[in-house]
Amino acid sequence: MGENIFSEPHKILFYETDRTRRTTIGMLVNILMLTSQDQSIELGLTEEKLNEKGYGWVITQHILKIERLPVYGENIRIFTRADSYNRYFCYRDFWIEDEKGTVIVKMHSIFVLMDQKKRKIARLLPEFIEPYKSEYTTKIERVPDPKIDETSQLISEKNYRVRFMDIDSNQHVNNVHYFDWMIDGLDENFLLTHTLVEMNIKYKREVHYGEMVNTETRMAENQLITYHLVKAGEEESCYACCTWGKK
Amino acid sequence: MGENIFSEPHKILFYETDRTRRTTIGMLVNILMLTSQDQSIELGLTEEKLNEKGYGWVITQHILKIERLPVYGENIRIFTRADSYNRYFCYRDFWIEDEKGTVIVKMHSIFVLMDQKKRKIARLLPEFIEPYKSEYTTKIERVPDPKIDETSQLISEKNYRVRFMDIDSNQHVNNVHYFDWMIDGLDENFLLTHTLVEMNIKYKREVHYGEMVNTETRMAENQLITYHLVKAGEEESCYACCTWGKK
Repeated sequence: MGENIFSEPHKILFYETDRTRRTTIGMLVNILMLTSQDQSIELGLTEEKLNEKGYGWVITQHILKIERLPVYGENIRIFTRADSYNRYFCYRDFWIEDEKGTVIVKMHSIFVLMDQKKRKIARLLPEFIEPYKSEYTTKIERVPDPKIDETSQLISEKNYRVRFMDIDSNQHVNNVHYFDWMIDGLDENFLLTHTLVEMNIKYKREVHYGEMVNTETRMAENQLITYHLVKAGEEESCYACCTWGKK
Repeated sequence: MGENIFSEPHKILFYETDRTRRTTIGMLVNILMLTSQDQSIELGLTEEKLNEKGYGWVITQHILKIERLPVYGENIRIFTRADSYNRYFCYRDFWIEDEKGTVIVKMHSIFVLMDQKKRKIARLLPEFIEPYKSEYTTKIERVPDPKIDETSQLISEKNYRVRFMDIDSNQHVNNVHYFDWMIDGLDENFLLTHTLVEMNIKYKREVHYGEMVNTETRMAENQLITYHLVKAGEEESCYACCTWGKK
């Protein structure tokens, strides 16, 4: 194992799962990100420390690949590795192994540093990045864009008011809450008969306490690809593309 | 420790807390109930087993007393004990100790057995109750009712659509989601400057997938007692009374 890989065990709790006993997608991402949180704590680079200096880590994209979802009571091991970084972007990998050591979930994520006062992306500061021992590169990764196919069928439009508990230490909606909004655009019957295989989600604009968001959910003709758009007012906040398998 | 006390350790995860780094009230109740879930598994009385026989445990009331809320990263120990039962009701205690062994949270809860087909309360079956070694009593506990003071000031009305992830294995909204709806009736400034000391919540009618609920939040003149009502259509589903302290 490389010296920059961090891992920890986790047992799936009942409130991390839905009535199918499998983790919800939002909780799956929370569980994966336990490792980056705990690695940061181990390195002394806590969220509080960043916040005190006026910065916070923000996610701009996740690409999730799911072999199978962990189930209630299952013992898993979660891994993370800060892969590489350039002036503005950090690329990080996460994965989950089951008890047999089989990789069941992978996630590739892009992090940026936000200046909390200016609400803008800041240049990465060496003190916040070097301890993770990732590789510096001048290249910007060419990550696929989860472009929405506008010819697909609009299947639902919903709206939500941002709640107090949706907000994180960056004073905006935590990246994980978008998963709940997006998945909620699909109906019960679809969710009970399909399982998520891949999801590419891209964050464009932060959303704050008390704002209203509205979601649009579209489905491709083959009924195994869905597109999700979250808007705050007229502005696009986040969009995603999901690939599903039949159960 | 009595032989019917079950306990387990837990470390508070970042997604169990809000931006104040303290557990949310809903997550606190989830965390407490880890013990009753795990005790049931240890005794071979899993949810699946009950469901197969057409039954499920349903909460009718929680009374929560909070000395202080556990914080992100804290190591706690959670305890539970099935206290007593009569024909229809089970009374169960939960509590949390911090690392020094100080009790920081207590909860007293009332459980009933639901016939999942008839959607009605069933008489308790000995096979589901005896393994917990609680005491049989002919008495029905006189638990205070969290009656809403209608002379208090209405401070907010909000509505929510029930989502797929709100539903549990009883095919209705899980008792914990009501906490999020109720707490969301209070504004950011109140939540950042107050801390919950006591909450008495009573469940009257189940709510199903796709239903709309609306909440009414009231505040007493002293601004330290709040009242919460959740209705589905015209019917009362759940109500609660909270006592707050200033931070």
